[in-house]
Amino acid sequence: MANSSAGRSSLSRAMDLLAAFDLDAVFLSVSQLSARSGLPLTTTHRLVAELVQLGLLERQPDRTYRLGVRLWELASKTPGAVGLREIAQPHLLAVHSRVRQHAQLGVLDGRDVLFLERLSTREAVVNFTVIGGRLPLHASSSGQVLLAHSPTAFQEEILASELVAYTHNTVHRPADLRSLLDGIRHDGFAVADGFLHESARGIAVPVRGVNNDVVAAMSVVVPNNDSSPMPHVRLLLAAAAAASKDLLAAYSPGSEDVAGGAFRVLMRSSEQSMAVFPGMPRAVSRPRP
Amino acid sequence: MANSSAGRSSLSRAMDLLAAFDLDAVFLSVSQLSARSGLPLTTTHRLVAELVQLGLLERQPDRTYRLGVRLWELASKTPGAVGLREIAQPHLLAVHSRVRQHAQLGVLDGRDVLFLERLSTREAVVNFTVIGGRLPLHASSSGQVLLAHSPTAFQEEILASELVAYTHNTVHRPADLRSLLDGIRHDGFAVADGFLHESARGIAVPVRGVNNDVVAAMSVVVPNNDSSPMPHVRLLLAAAAAASKDLLAAYSPGSEDVAGGAFRVLMRSSEQSMAVFPGMPRAVSRPRP
Repeated sequence: MANSSAGRSSLSRAMDLLAAFDLDAVFLSVSQLSARSGLPLTTTHRLVAELVQLGLLERQPDRTYRLGVRLWELASKTPGAVGLREIAQPHLLAVHSRVRQHAQLGVLDGRDVLFLERLSTREAVVNFTVIGGRLPLHASSSGQVLLAHSPTAFQEEILASELVAYTHNTVHRPADLRSLLDGIRHDGFAVADGFLHESARGIAVPVRGVNNDVVAAMSVVVPNNDSSPMPHVRLLLAAAAAASKDLLAAYSPGSEDVAGGAFRVLMRSSEQSMAVFPGMPRAVSRPRP
Repeated sequence: MANSSAGRSSLSRAMDLLAAFDLDAVFLSVSQLSARSGLPLTTTHRLVAELVQLGLLERQPDRTYRLGVRLWELASKTPGAVGLREIAQPHLLAVHSRVRQHAQLGVLDGRDVLFLERLSTREAVVNFTVIGGRLPLHASSSGQVLLAHSPTAFQEEILASELVAYTHNTVHRPADLRSLLDGIRHDGFAVADGFLHESARGIAVPVRGVNNDVVAAMSVVVPNNDSSPMPHVRLLLAAAAAASKDLLAAYSPGSEDVAGGAFRVLMRSSEQSMAVFPGMPRAVSRPRP
C-alpha cells in the first residue's frame, strides 16, 4: 500500500494514523496502525515516534498506543463542537434532570448527525448515540430535524441514497421520508419511534443560531411506549429556545447580554464566572512552558 | 522567525498552528496565525490550506479561521480524557444535581491540573475552571489532591518552584504547602477556601484507577462561607468511589461486571446500551466514505 502515501505530507499521513483509532479500537500496535492506515510499516514507525513526541499519541506499557490527552486539549478550543456544547449545556442539563433518560446534542456533519453531547442515566433505555459518534440522518430524530432544515438539493441527495432499515419501523422509502420531513418542518419537532431499536423513541427539536439558521438538534431518547411525546417536546422546545438565545448573544459582536468577552463563544460557566474571565490572570488557565 | 521552523516536519509546524488558538483567540487570520506560531507567512498560508483540506481548520466568512469539528471528532476517541470523563460522568452528574454549583473532573498534566469536565449552573459562584483549561497545582483543590498523591520527587519540584499567590488565602510558602499535602493524604480530601478567588471554595477528592493509582480529582466549587465542607466531602467521596469501581471494571481484561466489550474504556451509556454496543451494526455510528 506504499503508493497511497506517495507525495503526501507528513501531516496528511499522520492524520490517517490518528483516524485509525475508533470507539472499539482504542489501543493499537504499530503494525495495526500500519494495516488500518495503509501506510508502510517504516513510515508508520517514524510518524508514531513523532506523534508521541508531540503528545498526540501515548505509548502504553504493553507497547500499544492510544490517542494522547494533548490532542484532546487542542480540540477543546473548537467552537463548532465544544463552544456549541458549552453554550447549550445548561439547557441540556435542565432537560436531562427532568427526563432522567438520555439528553443529547447533535450537528450535521457530512451526511450524518455527529453527536457533541449525550447525558445518560444507568437505567436509561437502549441508545446508540456516542459522543463523537455518528448516526444516519434518516434513522434518528436528530438527523431528521437537521435534514428537514437543510437545503433542498442536500435533502434530494439523501432521499436518493440508500435508506437502511434498522428495524421494521425505520422510514426507508423516499416518499415516506419526504412527507416525514414536511411534517417536521410544520410541527417544529421530530418523533422517531423504534427507528434504530424497537424499544427506544427519539424526540428532537432544532436549535437555531445566527441568521436563524438551524445549527444543531437537541433531543431525548426515552422508552418507546404509548405515552404522549408532547411533555418531552415542550421541554425540548423551551430548552432549545433558551440555547438559541444564548448562541445569538454569544455570536453577536459587542453584545451586552452575555458576559465573558472573547471567551464567550467557546465556554459558558456561571454568570459570575463569565464576568471575571476577561480579567483572569494569564498565569491561571494557561499552560506553563 | 523562519529559523524556528527550519528542518521541522509539516506535522510539527501544523501543530504549532493548531496550538495558536486559545480560549480568547478562537478566530484567527493567517497573519495572526503566523505571528502567534512564529512560522513564516508563506509556510502558514500553505499549511492553513492543508489543514482546511483535512477538516482540522474551518474558514469563516470573514476570512479568519477556527479549529474544525474534524479535530474534535478525532479527539473524541482519547481514552485518557474522553474515556475517563465518560466513565466518571454519571457520578459527576449525581454530585452536580445535589450541589447545583460547579462539579468538575481534572487530571495531572505536566505541572498543571487539566480539567476534563465542568458542570455548572447559571447562578453558581465564581470559578476559573474551563473544560480543556488548566490551573496551577498549589492553588486549586483538585491540583492539591493530584500533587499530594504524586511521586515525592515531583512534589519537591513543585515545592521548589514559584508558588503564585492569587489571593491573600493562597498557600504560597513551601512549608505550608508541604503540611497541607500531608493533611490531604491523611484526610483523603482537600478544601481550598478562597485560593483563586475570595468568594469560592474548592473541595476535591482523589479518583483511583488500576493499581489503586490516583488518576483524577473530582471536585466541587461552592460559595466560600462558614458552612461545614463535610456534606460535600461525603458526597464527593461516594461519587469518586463509584467512579473508581467503574474505572477498574472498564480496564480489567474480560471483566464480567461491565458490558460494552471493546467500547467500555471510551464510552459509558446506560446498562442496556452498553449491552448492545458490541453487536451494533457497523453502518450505525461509523462515518460513510
